[in-house]
This record gives sequence, C-alpha cells and structure tokens, in this order.
Amino acid sequence: MCGIVGIIGHSPVNQAIYDGLTLLQHRGQDAAGIVTIDEENRFRLRKANGLVSEVFRQEHMLRLQGNVGIGHVRYPTAGSSSVSEAQPFYVNSPYGLTLVHNGNLTNNAELKQRLFTLAKRHVNTNSDSEALLNIFAHYLDQYPAEPLTPDNIFETVRKTNEVIRGAYACLAMIIGYGMVAFRDPYGIRPLVLGKREENGKTEYMFASESIALDIVGFEYVRDVQPGEAIYITFDGQFHSAICADNPKLNPCIFEYVYFARPDSVIDGVSVYAARVHMGRLLGEKIATQWQDILPEIDVVIPIPETSTDIALQIANVLNKPYRQGFVKNRYVARTFIMPGQAQRKSSVRRKLNPIAAEFKDKTILLVDDSIVRGTTSEQIVEMARQAGAKKVYFASAAPEIRYPNVYGIDMPTCEELVAYDRSVEQVAEMIGVDRLVFQDLSDLFKSVQLENPTIHNFDASVFTGEYITGDVDKEYLNCIAQARNDKAKANLAQQATNLEIHNES
Amino acid sequence: MCGIVGIIGHSPVNQAIYDGLTLLQHRGQDAAGIVTIDEENRFRLRKANGLVSEVFRQEHMLRLQGNVGIGHVRYPTAGSSSVSEAQPFYVNSPYGLTLVHNGNLTNNAELKQRLFTLAKRHVNTNSDSEALLNIFAHYLDQYPAEPLTPDNIFETVRKTNEVIRGAYACLAMIIGYGMVAFRDPYGIRPLVLGKREENGKTEYMFASESIALDIVGFEYVRDVQPGEAIYITFDGQFHSAICADNPKLNPCIFEYVYFARPDSVIDGVSVYAARVHMGRLLGEKIATQWQDILPEIDVVIPIPETSTDIALQIANVLNKPYRQGFVKNRYVARTFIMPGQAQRKSSVRRKLNPIAAEFKDKTILLVDDSIVRGTTSEQIVEMARQAGAKKVYFASAAPEIRYPNVYGIDMPTCEELVAYDRSVEQVAEMIGVDRLVFQDLSDLFKSVQLENPTIHNFDASVFTGEYITGDVDKEYLNCIAQARNDKAKANLAQQATNLEIHNES
Amino acid sequence: MCGIVGIIGHSPVNQAIYDGLTLLQHRGQDAAGIVTIDEENRFRLRKANGLVSEVFRQEHMLRLQGNVGIGHVRYPTAGSSSVSEAQPFYVNSPYGLTLVHNGNLTNNAELKQRLFTLAKRHVNTNSDSEALLNIFAHYLDQYPAEPLTPDNIFETVRKTNEVIRGAYACLAMIIGYGMVAFRDPYGIRPLVLGKREENGKTEYMFASESIALDIVGFEYVRDVQPGEAIYITFDGQFHSAICADNPKLNPCIFEYVYFARPDSVIDGVSVYAARVHMGRLLGEKIATQWQDILPEIDVVIPIPETSTDIALQIANVLNKPYRQGFVKNRYVARTFIMPGQAQRKSSVRRKLNPIAAEFKDKTILLVDDSIVRGTTSEQIVEMARQAGAKKVYFASAAPEIRYPNVYGIDMPTCEELVAYDRSVEQVAEMIGVDRLVFQDLSDLFKSVQLENPTIHNFDASVFTGEYITGDVDKEYLNCIAQARNDKAKANLAQQATNLEIHNES
Amino acid sequence: MCGIVGIIGHSPVNQAIYDGLTLLQHRGQDAAGIVTIDEENRFRLRKANGLVSEVFRQEHMLRLQGNVGIGHVRYPTAGSSSVSEAQPFYVNSPYGLTLVHNGNLTNNAELKQRLFTLAKRHVNTNSDSEALLNIFAHYLDQYPAEPLTPDNIFETVRKTNEVIRGAYACLAMIIGYGMVAFRDPYGIRPLVLGKREENGKTEYMFASESIALDIVGFEYVRDVQPGEAIYITFDGQFHSAICADNPKLNPCIFEYVYFARPDSVIDGVSVYAARVHMGRLLGEKIATQWQDILPEIDVVIPIPETSTDIALQIANVLNKPYRQGFVKNRYVARTFIMPGQAQRKSSVRRKLNPIAAEFKDKTILLVDDSIVRGTTSEQIVEMARQAGAKKVYFASAAPEIRYPNVYGIDMPTCEELVAYDRSVEQVAEMIGVDRLVFQDLSDLFKSVQLENPTIHNFDASVFTGEYITGDVDKEYLNCIAQARNDKAKANLAQQATNLEIHNES
Repeated sequence: MCGIVGIIGHSPVNQAIYDGLTLLQHRGQDAAGIVTIDEENRFRLRKANGLVSEVFRQEHMLRLQGNVGIGHVRYPTAGSSSVSEAQPFYVNSPYGLTLVHNGNLTNNAELKQRLFTLAKRHVNTNSDSEALLNIFAHYLDQYPAEPLTPDNIFETVRKTNEVIRGAYACLAMIIGYGMVAFRDPYGIRPLVLGKREENGKTEYMFASESIALDIVGFEYVRDVQPGEAIYITFDGQFHSAICADNPKLNPCIFEYVYFARPDSVIDGVSVYAARVHMGRLLGEKIATQWQDILPEIDVVIPIPETSTDIALQIANVLNKPYRQGFVKNRYVARTFIMPGQAQRKSSVRRKLNPIAAEFKDKTILLVDDSIVRGTTSEQIVEMARQAGAKKVYFASAAPEIRYPNVYGIDMPTCEELVAYDRSVEQVAEMIGVDRLVFQDLSDLFKSVQLENPTIHNFDASVFTGEYITGDVDKEYLNCIAQARNDKAKANLAQQATNLEIHNES
Repeated sequence: MCGIVGIIGHSPVNQAIYDGLTLLQHRGQDAAGIVTIDEENRFRLRKANGLVSEVFRQEHMLRLQGNVGIGHVRYPTAGSSSVSEAQPFYVNSPYGLTLVHNGNLTNNAELKQRLFTLAKRHVNTNSDSEALLNIFAHYLDQYPAEPLTPDNIFETVRKTNEVIRGAYACLAMIIGYGMVAFRDPYGIRPLVLGKREENGKTEYMFASESIALDIVGFEYVRDVQPGEAIYITFDGQFHSAICADNPKLNPCIFEYVYFARPDSVIDGVSVYAARVHMGRLLGEKIATQWQDILPEIDVVIPIPETSTDIALQIANVLNKPYRQGFVKNRYVARTFIMPGQAQRKSSVRRKLNPIAAEFKDKTILLVDDSIVRGTTSEQIVEMARQAGAKKVYFASAAPEIRYPNVYGIDMPTCEELVAYDRSVEQVAEMIGVDRLVFQDLSDLFKSVQLENPTIHNFDASVFTGEYITGDVDKEYLNCIAQARNDKAKANLAQQATNLEIHNES
Repeated sequence: MCGIVGIIGHSPVNQAIYDGLTLLQHRGQDAAGIVTIDEENRFRLRKANGLVSEVFRQEHMLRLQGNVGIGHVRYPTAGSSSVSEAQPFYVNSPYGLTLVHNGNLTNNAELKQRLFTLAKRHVNTNSDSEALLNIFAHYLDQYPAEPLTPDNIFETVRKTNEVIRGAYACLAMIIGYGMVAFRDPYGIRPLVLGKREENGKTEYMFASESIALDIVGFEYVRDVQPGEAIYITFDGQFHSAICADNPKLNPCIFEYVYFARPDSVIDGVSVYAARVHMGRLLGEKIATQWQDILPEIDVVIPIPETSTDIALQIANVLNKPYRQGFVKNRYVARTFIMPGQAQRKSSVRRKLNPIAAEFKDKTILLVDDSIVRGTTSEQIVEMARQAGAKKVYFASAAPEIRYPNVYGIDMPTCEELVAYDRSVEQVAEMIGVDRLVFQDLSDLFKSVQLENPTIHNFDASVFTGEYITGDVDKEYLNCIAQARNDKAKANLAQQATNLEIHNES
Repeated sequence: MCGIVGIIGHSPVNQAIYDGLTLLQHRGQDAAGIVTIDEENRFRLRKANGLVSEVFRQEHMLRLQGNVGIGHVRYPTAGSSSVSEAQPFYVNSPYGLTLVHNGNLTNNAELKQRLFTLAKRHVNTNSDSEALLNIFAHYLDQYPAEPLTPDNIFETVRKTNEVIRGAYACLAMIIGYGMVAFRDPYGIRPLVLGKREENGKTEYMFASESIALDIVGFEYVRDVQPGEAIYITFDGQFHSAICADNPKLNPCIFEYVYFARPDSVIDGVSVYAARVHMGRLLGEKIATQWQDILPEIDVVIPIPETSTDIALQIANVLNKPYRQGFVKNRYVARTFIMPGQAQRKSSVRRKLNPIAAEFKDKTILLVDDSIVRGTTSEQIVEMARQAGAKKVYFASAAPEIRYPNVYGIDMPTCEELVAYDRSVEQVAEMIGVDRLVFQDLSDLFKSVQLENPTIHNFDASVFTGEYITGDVDKEYLNCIAQARNDKAKANLAQQATNLEIHNES
C-alpha cells in the first residue's frame, strides 16, 4: 500500500513530485524517495527512511534536477523496513532504469532464483520491487541496441506480466527513452493518469490517487487499465497498450474502506461517496437487526479518523445524535527503553482520549472501519466504559477479516485475526462489547458498485480467502505467516539495515 | 501559548515529562526542552528546535536522569525562534535555578535594563522568559545563605509579581530545595496541579492542561490560583500562598475557543462543553437573525479541526445536515526555493481539500473558530465556490478580532486584522461570502460561564482592546507592531540564531 | 593515486580492511569506502567523502559483515570529488560485481560512449572507474550462465585490457565466485599480494603498498605483475594468468619520490632506500657542480615531510649540519568566507613555520622532493629570508616537471608548471633562490634501479612528455587542461555533488 | 595542558581565534570552544568535543560575530571529557562573564563546597574551571553596581589567587568592561601577550604559546608575569598589576621537554634551543658514562616526533649517524568492538613502523623524550629487535618520572609509573633494553636556564615529588589516584556525558 508519483514535464519536477508524495503520505510513512533525470541523462536520487518532510531537505531538492522523475512513499510489507529497500530502485543495464512499485509480488523468492540462474542478475535485497525491476530489465535487454520501439516496451511489460504474480502498479524510467506506467492484470492497486497544458505543451502525471493530481494542478484523465502499459517518451509521444490476456478489474476493496483519502476517486468511485454508502447500508442493517436495543442507544461515536463519515451516516439512518467523543492525539509519544527503569505498557490512551461527558451514563454505539487483531478495539471499549458508558455496542464497516493479505497490506497471520474461526458473538466477547455488528460483504461491494456499476469483482481475499492471482495456497500462507512472525521480522530488519548497497546515512 | 510540565516524583521522570509535553504539543511546535536534577544535584538539560519527537532521542533520554524535572514546548511570540531562546532557562546563581514559562511579559525591555543596572545580571537573549528567571533569581538572592524558608520563596514570588507585567504561568526548580509553580495575578495562562500515590508516596505534577495529567496517570487536584505560588520541596512538603494583592481570575478566552484541547478542563471549564455551548448560542443567533435565508442552507460544513464540535452543534440547532466537506491534509508540503525556478504561491490547498459532492450546487454554511487576517478564509471560500457551491455563508465562533494580543498569542498588528475598523458587511465582502455572522462577545463569555459561573472576567483584549495588566497603551502597541513586522522578525531571527550561549547544534 | 585493499579470509574482514585503508590514507584523503559480501551473498557497502576515521563509525562497521571485502581511499583526479563517485562501484548484472580502482583511464569518454551504444550500459557519473567496471561487466556477461571458469575471467580481463587505456590497479568481487586482482600491462600503479595462515587455512590480502600487509599481519608474497590477473575463488583456489601481450613493468617514478610511504617496498624497491640513494646522488651532483659556493653553506634544511630522508643524506655527502629548521603545522586551519569580512590570503605559514635560530644569518640549502607550480617554494624561500637567512640555495629531488600527469596524479596544466619552457636559472629567479639544482633524471632512475636492476622503464612522463600508453597526444592534453582548469573543476563538482545515485547523506 | 587564545580587536576575530586555536591544537585535541561578544553585548558561543576543524563549521563561524573573543582547546585532566565541560564557561551574574582556563586546580572540591555555602553558586559540572569562574564571579560581585574600576578587577584577581590553588593561566571577558588575563603566582602554565597596529589602532592578543601570535600576525610583547593580571578595556585602555604576594616564576619543565611546539618561546626560552641543549647534555652524559659501549653504537634513532631534535644533537655529540628509522603512522586506526568477533590487542604498530634496513644487524641507540608507564617503550624496543637490531640502548631526555602531575598533565598514579621505586637497571629490564640512561634533572634545568638564566625554579614535581603550591600531600595524591583509576574515569565520563547544561549535540 505504498504511494507512487511520476511526472513528465517541461520544467523542474522536484517540487511537484515532493508535493504529490506528501499528499500520498497516508499510504506509507516508512520511507520516501525521488529520482529525476538531469540534462546530461544522469539519474539523481534521494531516498531514505522517514516522512517526506524528513527525507527531503533543501540540499536534496537542489540535487534532484530535471524535468522528469518518479517518487515513492513506502508502507512496509514484504521485505523489511531497511533503507536499502527504500525506492526508487536502479539498475544500470540495460539503458539505465529506475522503478517505483506499489503492491506486493507473491512469487518473489522464485523470481530471485530465476534472475540469478537465467539472467545472471544479482538482487541484493529481499525487496520484491528490486526483483520486479530486474525482471523488467532482463526482458528489455533482449532487444538489440537499435532504438527501442514502443512495441519492444509493451512486449517487455507483457513478458513481465507473465512471470510475476501479485499486485503491482509501477512507474519506470528508461534513460534515453521515456516513462512507462503499468498495472497488474487485475488492477488490484490503483494508478491514475493526469495531464495539463503548460505553455502550449502537454505534461503528464501518474499517481496512486487522484487527489495528488488535483492539488499538484493536473487534471484527471483516466485510470490506468488492468494489464495496460502507458509509455510516454521524453519528447512527449503517448503510447498505450494492453499487455495481458483477459485482464479484468479487481480492485482492492480496502482502498475504499480505509486506505485511500476520502477526496480521491479510484476506478471511477469517489471514496467519500462509497463510505457514505457503507454507513447507510450498515445503518440499515443495524436498524433491522437491532430493533430490540435501538431505543437504548444514546449516541453514535466514531473511532477516529477513517470512520467519521461512516458513523455520521449511521447516526442519520438511526436518527441518533452523532458525537466526536474521542479526541485523537495528533502527536503520539514514543516509549523509550531506559536501562534500569520499568517499561510502561503501550496503551491506546497514547492515541485516543475520551471526552467523558459524551460517555457518562450513556449507551453508545462505537463505529470503526474494521476489526483486525481486536486488541485495540478491546482497549477502546474498556476506555469507553471507564469514561462511564453504561453499554457499548460496536459496528464494523468491514466484514469479518479472516485471512491474511498478500497484495500489499501488512496484516497478521490467521491465528492473530480475532475473527478467524470465531462467531460474531465470540468476537463480541473477546473485545468486550455488549453487541457487535459487521457489515455484510455484499453490502460492502454494493457501496462501491453504487458509484461504478461496471466493477464486478474485488480483491476481498481477507474476507473470503480467495486469492485472484491463483498462486496463493495453504503452503504459501504458512510461509508468509512465518515471515511475518514478529521475531522473524526483527531478525530481517536487523540484517537488512546493514546492506545499504544504495544508501548511506 | 506554550505548554509546560513539571513532575516531582520518586522514580525517573524523563518519560513522563516527555509524554506530557507530547500531549501539549498542540500548544507549541517550535521548540522543546526538558531539564531534570540528578542524584548529585546537577541539572541535566536537553532543548532544541523541533517537535518533541524530533528533539528527544534515546541518547537525550538517557541523559535526563532524575526524579524531578520540568519541560516546555514553545510557540514563538516575543523574541524569536532561535534555539538559544528555547526553554528551560538556567542561571547558576543563586543556588542553581531553572525555569519554564508560558505566557508573555509586556515590560521585557524595562526588566532587562533594570536587571543590568540594579542586579548586574546579564540577559543574553531577547527572551522575556530569561528576564523573568533573572528577576526571580535576583530577589531570591536577597536572602542570606541559611536554609531558604517557604516564606522566602513566597516573598520572592510576590516581589517578582510586583515588577513583572503580563501573562505568565511558570515552573521553577531550585537546587537543594524544590519546585515552585506560580501563575500571574490574573490567571491569564492556565496551570493545573495533579497528584498520585506511588508505593505509598505522593508524587505531584503540574501542567498547562489537565489532559496531560489524565494520560500520564495523575489525578487532577485543582488549578493553581491567580497570584498563587505552590512550593513543593524535594522531600515532599507541600506549601502554598497567594503572593499578590487582589488577584482575580481573568483567563484567556482564546484557550476555550481554539487553543486548548477539547478534552481538557481549564479553571473548572470543560473546553469541549464550552465549545458545544458556543455552537448552540451561535446557532441560535443565526436562527434568529438569518430567518430570511435559513431555508436555503443545504449543509453545515466545519473548517477543520477546532470548529467541528461547534459546527455540529450549529447544525443541530438549525436542523441542517452536518458534513465533513473538507479533508485536512495531515502532511503539509514545504515549499523549497530553487535557484532559477519560479516559486509557487503558497495555497490553502496545501492544507485543505474539498469533497466536491458536498459543495456541488449547494448553499453551504461554513463554520470556523475565528477570522484573523481573513486571507485564509477568503481562499477557503473561493475553494468552496470552485467546488460548486451556489452560495457561501460563514459563521465565526469568535467575535471580531480588532486588537493585537500581548499575552502570548502571536497575532498580526491592528492594520492586518481584517475586522479592524470594518463592519461585518465589509468583512463579508473582503472574504467573499454571501453573508457573515460573528459570535457575540457576551455569548462567548456565557459559553464558558455556563460551565463555571464563578469566572467573571476574561482576557478578551483582542476583541475589546482592554488590557487587564494596565500597562498596554497606544505606544506599546505601536512598538510591538513594529517588532512583529515581518521584516523585523526576519532580522531578529537572523541575529538570534547565532547566539547559542546555551545550545549547540 | 588512490589506495586499495582487498581481503579473502575466513573470519570478519571489516576491521582489517579498515586498518589497511588507514595505513594507505596518505594515498588519498578525499573519500573512503568498503564493500563486503555477507553470508547470504549480499553486498554490504559504506562509502562517503572524508577520512577513513570519519567515514566509518561503529554502525557502519556493524553493517560490513562478511569474510571477504574490498576497500578504497580516494585521491581525486579524473571526475570530481562528489560522493557519488566514491568507490567501490557496484553493478548488479552480471552476477553482482563490485570494484575498486587505483589509477586513471585516458580514454574514459570513449569508453562511456562505447558502453552506451554497444552494451546498453548506463554510466551515471564521470568516474572512469565506473566505466571500467562496466567494461569488465560487459565482457564477463558474454559467457553463458554455466559456472564461470578461471579462463572466462582471464579472458574478460584480457578484453578489458584491450579496450581501456591508462593506469589501473584493480580489485573486483564477483558474487558466487571470487575476487579478481589485475594491474595494467605497464604496471604503472602498484599492487601487492600477501597471505597468512589462520587455523590451517590460507587468507589472502591485496594492497597498494606492502606496508598495509605488514601491519595488518599478512606476509608479503609478491607484486601483481604488469598485465597479470589473479583470481582467488571464495573457497580458496588460487589462479593467475598474464592477460596482456608483451606487458612490461613501467612503474610510476613518483611513487618513489614522494607518494608512497618510506617503509613500503614496491616492485622490489624499498622506497626508503631509493630516497637515500636520491639524496646521495643529488648530494654528489651538488658537491661537483657547486664547488664555488659549497664552503658558504651553513646548514641543510628539509622542507617537511617527504624530503627529510633525502636532505639528511645530502647533508652527509656535503658534510654539513642537518637541521629540522621548519616545523610543520600538523593541524591546518581552514579559511572561512565571512560575508562582509575581508578574506585573508592563504599562506604557506598556515602549513610551515621556521625556527628562526636555524636561519638567522646563515646560508642555507633547502631540500624539497619536487617543484610543481613553484608558488609554494617561492613562499617558503621568502619565509626563510624573513627568518634571517643570508642566502638560500635550493635542491629538488625530482627533475624539472614540464608535462601533466595523466595516470592518476592531479597536476596542473603545462602553463602552470614553473619549469615548463624555463631554464634552471629562470626557475631559480621565479622562486627567488640564489641557486637551484634539480636531480638528473638518470640519477632518479638509478636511485630506484640500484634496488631493483630489473626495472628498465618508468613512467616519467611529467619529466619527458613521453606517455607509455601511446594514446596521449597534444589534443588530449589540451582537453584535460581545460577539464582541470579550476573553473571547470568547480562546475563539475557542483553538478556531480547532486547525483548520488549510490549514496545519501 | 590546554591551549587558550584571546583577542581584543577592531574587526571580526572569529577567524583569527580559530587560527590561533588550530596552532595550539597540539595542546589539546579533546574539545574546542570560542565565545565572542557581538555589537549588542551578547555572548555568542560554540563549543563541542572534537578537533578545532571538526567543531567549527561555516554556520558556527557566522554565529561568532564580534571584535573580541576568547577560545580554548581542551586536554582532559581533572573532570571528564564530557562536552558539558568544554570551555569557555559562562555565568550571567554579575555582568555576564566568560572564561577559559589552562591548568588544573588542586582544591576544586573545597571550592565547589565553598561556592555553594558562602556564595550560593551552583557549579553544575566537575570542572575546576567552572569553579574558578564562579570564584572570580563571586568576588567581582562584591563591588557595587557603579562602573567597575581597574582596581576592582585587580582586587578580584587577588582574592581569587588567595583561595584557589594549583596552576592556571586564564582569560575572562566581562560584558561592558573588557578582557582580563591572569596567571597563577608561580607562573606554572604559560601565557604570552602580543599586539599589532591596525589602521592606527592597537589590537591585543593573548595565547598559551608565542607561535600562535607569530602566525596569526601579532608581535610578541612579553609573557604575562606570575601573579600578574592584565586588564584591557573594550575601548583599548591597558592596565596591569601584580595581584599576589611574592609571586615567583616556576614554569612547568614539561612544556620544554615535550609539550610545547619547538618554534615557541616560553618565558624567554626558545623551546627548540632548550631541546638542542637537552640533546647535547644528554649526549655528553652518554659519552662519559657509556664509554665501554660507545664504539658498538651504529646509529641513533629517535622515537618520533618530539625527540627528533634531541636525538639529532645526541648523534652529533657522539659522532654517530642519525637516522629516522621509525615511520609514524599519521592516521591511526580505531579499534571497533564487534559483537561476536574477537578483539584485537591494541599495538604500538598502529602508531609506528620501523624501516627494517636501519635496524637489521645494528646496535641502535633509541631516543625518547621521556618514559612514563614504560609499556609503549617496551613495545617499541621489541619492534626494534624484531626488525633485526642486535642491541638496543635507550636514552630518555627527561629524568625518571616518579610522581603524579597535579597541575594539568594527565599522568598515571605512582604505582603505574615504571620508574617509581625502581632503579635505572630495573627500568631497563622492564622495558627490555640492553642499557638505559636518563637525563639528569640538573642538566634538564640547565638546558632551559642556558636560554634564560633568570628562571631559578621549575615545576618538576613529577621527578621530585615536591609540589610548589604546598597543598599537595599524600592524602591528596591518594585521592586523585583513585579518581584517575580507569574504572573511576569511565564512570565519571558516563555521568558527565549526560549533563549538557550548556551544550547539545
């Protein structure tokens, strides 16, 4: 669930890419990077761990000369959070290539092996994105050194699509040629195209979400299609082609539930409007199913921030007061480990605080976007009760999450999911609420489809266990379960922190 | 409008003060500092420009040993934003003293002069807080070197109160003795006392807002009174005394309007409750005065974030839908100055973005906490219209701001205030709205008094031009006008950045 | 004139490479870098501008895991001093390769062009070393993906030798295979091989100078031969082959005059012994040619530091007192540019200071290793006179420098060389001495050959204008003259500072 | 053995003080600091751990505005090497004072106690210099606030001299008044005065060594006298007075042996000339006492760097060849502690390397300036033997060191001194030489007195155990023995690192 931006312009792009990444910062706060191409066809790169505002200082912006460039904000999924795995990635052969990738490949280990044995290409990190770039490079290298044609490039994307599995929306730059945008054949991760006219010339921009186009000053043109590649040469020629057989749109439903910004439009769907529908449909379900307790409910309170629009709609449907009863701590304190001092338990109080008056002696309906491990929900419920709530009901805008995500969202293993192998009542007991309701999956789909009826399928694997790419089985899930095990993560981070083939601190 | 925290405990206080400052971070994001006293009676200090999370790293926390300490987050007002003016301040004579200060003194120049000529004390910065500490030190130094008594300390505070003018809530530590908390005779800036029992011993905490007590785990005891000093010795004795003649509570009304967190209680007033009252009273004023246009209003939209609770209440009173039509960009992009590149105009779009569907063809009522320069309001209104609003009405939860603030809030000069010397209609025209309403000052007072009827006066000088400390006249205002002039500020910053008598980078 | 080190061991090599680089620090203080290969066949890199002691901190050493590695200290010649041009360089295809290079290629521009058109390989910097690595990579990529044989590698080096021109001593690592050391067919730059037994296993070390072997604890085995490649597999097999037709040893004479440490042995020649011979032969020349003024000379004074051993020997031959009359300032002050402050002229006094008593009323013979621009010599002579010297004679251990160096030593253009187109008398006048003598070139050769009579040729192009690689003509020299022009340098540095494709700060 | 510099000029002094500190860098590499006074009478400070070149960057130089200032380089003795103990120190009362101090006080603990009880002054570090500044401040504060007269200042120095014990050469600045230089009544530590005319105005400079005056461009005027204070007002009036009863010059003999630069003149004695005398007298002693073995000696080899001038003279007296047989490693490698890796023994080989040819089969006379612990000497001797020396004789230019230094040189405790309680023969055995000779103390005195016969006494306490200040007894020495115990040092460093009342990193 990273964020990517690319611009082909006629004047310096560093500030615009920086702005775009800042607007996509909610998609990943782990690392950031930008690469541009200067007048002498040299890549200029800056990437590091941290927020966009931390990674780019004046000196780096000065370095990032050029009228074309791509950028990335990272949300750590596969691989670790080592700076050596920050994007963009670079390989110098053929041509000089850089790439940014949003998503996650499910056959990374196989790709890495294949690259070494077939292509003699070294992949120095565990990042699937570095492997992806090398696969692309390998196929692109098959064409003789005459000028590359658009067909060569589309063929390269096609071959790449054939061997890589998973979710990916990518932007690549080829020295001497242009920028290539491509999206996996299921369109799991979003990617939009924008343009603007400046001094009579057309400039193009790609971004993970339309909001970035809007605010940077580009006009939304369309979404990149599933399996499509768009190739824009540095002198402004626009080419596009579908590079996969039978692509079909299958967007990640989570983008709408909580990942994307409400003011974005993804695959024709206003995220805000979809959330309003989610609230309405869930409100109607509650109105129907909870008739016995409806009169008791005094107030509807969202758990900030994603669920506010949903909760407001539920309150409207139920004709109950809506109150912002929790204050979110905008600045969250870090817990230091002091030798010889007892360590404090991390508490949800560091993140949220109740306004007692809204809970005192009331029966409340809490609304959240989803329930994953259940531990945070449990603490919030407890906090509501300590603030004086008589009864606590709970509504989740997403259905029961029972399976891991393999397409770019960092989720725990099955065993850690509170809804795995448990009934609604059992989950209610686990998190300590008096009654609990989940959105129906069909209603969730409907919330989105109301805005764009042409979307027939979604990646909803965390609810259903059905993985569209067809290569995810029990064994694979066990494998990633192990990898995501906290201890494993720690080890990996430890190792990878020390690679740094591309970066220094 | 800084934030201060102090703890006298029986175990290390570094993490707790850090947590407290993080919770008060909304009161100042400019600089942060903590000083503790270690077992060998040595001060241990860390202060620097930046957010709490940026200023304190593991190495600094390790440095901050000790069971007592004070901390500060800075919002720059008087003086500049140089790191040499970050707090806490330190003087080594007498005893070894450190101090943190929230507020602003109005007779800083006079104090600095007096200190040099009478007390031979050098004040190395322009900070009024450094002057304040030296005044306190000067009077404390009058007592012979026998053990200081509580009376000596209260007498020192009394003398200090007699010569300094303005707003101040302070915490000081005296090596070998204890911690002193004092608040100006008008109680303009807030300060609360909390305590808890740990292993049978009492620990005390002071903080600018009660929320810090709550989350760090202390129980609110009471507000420090106007003109009161509380002196707690390092071995736990609690002393307090009123150290001013005729003190009377006169709290800053702005704390309630937008400065404090809604979940804080200040001088017996829940900030959240006060805001709900503001919304209700303003809603009632609108309902009365705007009967002609009420039917037109389609939706009430707050300008995030402070005004959401107010707007929700207005919507309830007017029986109109409440919608979160603006999305606040949580990460705001910095604009870099690139040699040879045209610079972009800073835009409110970097901070806010409308959800078009909520504006399109609608008549909207925007709600904000206040209008200062008017330029931001103007841009927001324009943004609403571009998003398709038919008509834009505007409600300000604070009355017209017509005078500068001299007690710690950084406000422009009279000439820059849009409401200065203008009627409501003229302001409406300036910011481009179809109709505009300001809260009545009496209603604003009432909103707070409803929660604590014992408060009879407020510092509302920005609305009335009446300055309670009695020393603010035309000449003084002209003087600060000049000082706050942007150019002057720049020069000052330039100079002060280079002092660094206490700090290095 | 960089320094390189490589070790194939059976335990961690980070500290040993660090030690080796520190011992070679006199060969380059501009940048430093180390890359190792860890247990999972990943490269681990740290490189940055600065001294070895500044570049590697604890955190970097922790990163540099592995039992094999190579390192580099840079002396800036071709290219600029940007950190993006710090070594080692890395390419990931084929196999994963890293390389360090001491020397300078004379056909860099041609290579870069050839790489792009023939090999589709992007070279992102102006560094000839990056080009060299890519040439090597290109030829190595010709072999099918079956296991590489030693012959493949030797053939690769042979092809590389055929297309690159100039001076080079290189160390490369190939993931999955081993370390390759090779030296240009003229052996212009030095490279030695050492080994040691640890726990019954053989470990190998390569270094630019034997001193690094000695102190790190390896035993000197032999010099790598001109045109030779040594390939040591990671499992310890040792292979070597001559990979050039008619290689012949032609070492840079400057290594002996002043570049190498006196305690090193290069191509069989003790640098210290060679310098003693230089002093003796120059002393004998003076004794013969300056009989008229010999009796006047009161004292022989070296200009520190290289010339001390030479001057001592001259004093012995002339039977005159030797005195260390100049004190070298070990810490040289930087000159800051302060806005509005007059800038000081940089003076040789910042580097050297005379002990007045050794100059006062004396006739002195100053000894230096060489005279390049003449400006420093002139200042030193003036300083000697101000200290009271009656007469100043001057002896240069190197002959007249009249041509630029293209093999790795940063020298000014012809026009800037004081001896270019001037007689000895004219140079004497320029630098202000009463008499001047240069070593004869034949004596300089003899000084080295006395220690190893098998060396028949030297790179002495700065004295003769004859460039052994045969590709350096008037046009080339003009070209580099332009490039080395100070202004050009500044521009280049400016640009390159901003590339950073491999490095961040 | 720190270095101090002060300048009162008529144009910016930052660069000149920086230059002066760089020239005194050999006196302390531990920390550096400069404070200036700007046009608005504000102190501007920069101090940090590290070399001068590391501590001051462009941004700090910009900060250090003003035409007067003082600077310091630190050699850690008393106290620890924490940055909070870097100098200059500052107190704001009275007037605003800063001070730099070279030397060591022997009654620091008593002073700190006295300051707290009598003067209510807090000393936040263990630094004796902070205590010294506070003593000075305390006495200066006794005068009423009318303008300070020169007599007030001299009286303050006199009182200070009466209560502090030990060695001190100090520079202080008083806001609004001027700069004060003073030297302890025995003149143990050096301090010189220089001046120059610039545009018809006189500028003054103080420095620990005359060399700093020379190179910065000031003319040596005279040494500050023992017990003297010189007070120069900011408007250029020069005052001086003797502020102690019966002061008598008693300079530290170690300055001449190895601490000062050879090109400095201290108390009328050329350090270089004194060393030449040391060599001559020691050579004569050897010629007399070692007649039996003189013929055997093949070569005289100095242990770099201080002893080269001495060894050269010994060689001349003995009529033996002088050879620079050891190469000093200019860049010394740090040893990193790697988890899981065996740690290397630190070896003298990291610092020195022999040129084998000068040792092979020869009988050598090694010359060093002194022998302290003996461990380094032992390793060097062993290295000489490994390089092939037949026999190794050893001459020490200083007599046997048997007692600790309490006046500013960091020396081990008695028990760690190899010459403590041992005969010459026993020391010879300990360090493994075939014969050993120490300079006679009378000859050492004579070497200096030959250049200035008016010096009758020296601080030679490390040889004699007689401490001129009269307050150093067995108990005191035991006390510092404990404090200098390595473990104690480590603890102290640990604690003090964390104080940082003045500094941040």
